[in-house]
Amino acid sequence: MGKRDTKQHILEVAADIVHLKGFNATGIQEVLAAAGVPKGSFYFHFKSKEDFGLQLLDFYDGHFDGLLQKALAGPEGTVLEKLRLFFRGFRDYFAGCGYTRGCPIGNLAQEMGDQNEAFRQKIAEVWQKMTGAVAAALEQARQVGELPVDFPVQKTAEFIVNSWEGALIRQKITRNSEPLDLFEEIIFGKILK
Amino acid sequence: MGKRDTKQHILEVAADIVHLKGFNATGIQEVLAAAGVPKGSFYFHFKSKEDFGLQLLDFYDGHFDGLLQKALAGPEGTVLEKLRLFFRGFRDYFAGCGYTRGCPIGNLAQEMGDQNEAFRQKIAEVWQKMTGAVAAALEQARQVGELPVDFPVQKTAEFIVNSWEGALIRQKITRNSEPLDLFEEIIFGKILK
Repeated sequence: MGKRDTKQHILEVAADIVHLKGFNATGIQEVLAAAGVPKGSFYFHFKSKEDFGLQLLDFYDGHFDGLLQKALAGPEGTVLEKLRLFFRGFRDYFAGCGYTRGCPIGNLAQEMGDQNEAFRQKIAEVWQKMTGAVAAALEQARQVGELPVDFPVQKTAEFIVNSWEGALIRQKITRNSEPLDLFEEIIFGKILK
Repeated sequence: MGKRDTKQHILEVAADIVHLKGFNATGIQEVLAAAGVPKGSFYFHFKSKEDFGLQLLDFYDGHFDGLLQKALAGPEGTVLEKLRLFFRGFRDYFAGCGYTRGCPIGNLAQEMGDQNEAFRQKIAEVWQKMTGAVAAALEQARQVGELPVDFPVQKTAEFIVNSWEGALIRQKITRNSEPLDLFEEIIFGKILK
């Protein structure tokens, strides 16, 4: 592998481990073993464990908004139907892993937000993009008349993402789709009207 | 201190440390030092770190519902106004600690829900009580005509607690009251109608 490929490979492997276990509980040695790379290679690409964590956040960044863009670009259905299917896609993903894992950004916000200012700032950027993507979808829905002209797009997008993150935590405890189903029912049945 | 007092003292000191740092990042030594008790005393009361964590969950248990009962017992205002003030009380608490910490139950759900089945089950019980307390408040509001007769009390209570937990995570990143203000605005302005 070239240097860029090695770095990408380490991040891919690490993203999965950190998603499962959290950042503090993930050891560099474990990442090296899983990725099959020597220690020197890791420290060539990452100055420290903190630097590695921040670059991991960059790696996660854009995943949520990228998937949402793709969902909205689909040919069929209204904007709000596409947004609903986007969230259902995640529900199907979580069903496939026993409702564990949660959102890597929400997990790191909970774990690191109070502990590390550099993490907090980076998470703020990534979270802002998730909210921005949902706000853009709602704005599109508003412009085609699926939502009232005076619908509070930005606030509602923020509430939706926050509530989504809460449902993902709850799901780790219920181990079923109920929190995500309830999220869908109330957001689409009561809020997006 | 008597044995019961020592145990209570350890739990009080530990509750604060775990609330701040999380469970895995909290060392037994740190708890012992902060509580000023010897190791033997700790292991007299707790079989293991896991047992200590589970007893800590019992210690947190009832805090949320106890405060809500107290808020509802107040003489003035409608049931929904009292419920709103209850959540505002938490917002004031978080304002006082720079919007850090979050909910100990939500934190432990995120940190331990996937990692430890005994924790997951205990958190499920505690969380159920939080939801039950909010459901009881909504049922009271329904019975006195503040909510429609057919209002979906249980589902809405679950959604409220999940969204609250999400807002508390978001707050660790924004470091201001916006996520909790938005929670209040949408829950009380749009959902509880």
